[in-house]
Amino acid sequence: MRGVSLSSLNCSIARTLDVVGERWTLLILRDAFNGVRRFEDFAASLPVARNVLADRLATLVEHGILRREQYEERPPRFQYRLTPKGFELYPVLMALLQWGDKHLAGEQGPPIDVLHGPCEAPIATRVVCTKCGEPLTARDVAPRRHVP
Amino acid sequence: MRGVSLSSLNCSIARTLDVVGERWTLLILRDAFNGVRRFEDFAASLPVARNVLADRLATLVEHGILRREQYEERPPRFQYRLTPKGFELYPVLMALLQWGDKHLAGEQGPPIDVLHGPCEAPIATRVVCTKCGEPLTARDVAPRRHVP
Repeated sequence: MRGVSLSSLNCSIARTLDVVGERWTLLILRDAFNGVRRFEDFAASLPVARNVLADRLATLVEHGILRREQYEERPPRFQYRLTPKGFELYPVLMALLQWGDKHLAGEQGPPIDVLHGPCEAPIATRVVCTKCGEPLTARDVAPRRHVP
Repeated sequence: MRGVSLSSLNCSIARTLDVVGERWTLLILRDAFNGVRRFEDFAASLPVARNVLADRLATLVEHGILRREQYEERPPRFQYRLTPKGFELYPVLMALLQWGDKHLAGEQGPPIDVLHGPCEAPIATRVVCTKCGEPLTARDVAPRRHVP
């Protein structure tokens, strides 16, 4: 079913998954947020075939989520950096992290604590109202067809 | 590479993707949040093979994200409902939605507006500090190895 483009489903969730919905892609982005930049470092971090990794990185560059920049001339070497558009995927990754920390961590607890530096307090990913600021669940929201 | 279990990567993001990281799975959950409950309705909503849909639903039930309950005796018919654990995946879906709304919606704008009912204001998915409440980006956080 990989051939079916989810963009045809008229929905921003489907469209986003069409771009980043491959599992390796989100793990590549996780690594990028953790400071990984070079092909060899992504390859060392992820048990993924090199051609698949190259393909996923190229897709992320094509969509403007990563940018590829040369950092060495001889031999030519490139690194991959998050763009502002890529940076804005942070809540996706932190929402996945939060759920895994709560439901899949086991007795040892989560492997990594992600803390707000100055406060040294845990972070959370929340759905909030942009007007009243209240944290929301699915029960509090109403979908409405957008009028352009 | 589907055979590689990402759980071996000691990370809550990888573990979560191991459970829900298939694109159809997240779209099934989107539909469940939108009130879809019956196999035939999921099948009508998603261009996915029925055996794949059945497999993904079974996986979600196995992981306690959906529960399968009989709603008719003759013939026996079942529906799929989000559990509390499933309900907590809402920020993942809303984070995907928010990014797609911003970056992939095109000139028409997003197809659906998701509003906080009482305020009729847009929602947002934010990473925040649980202590000071400030909205955070990746630059504000520090990962630290968890000490059990």
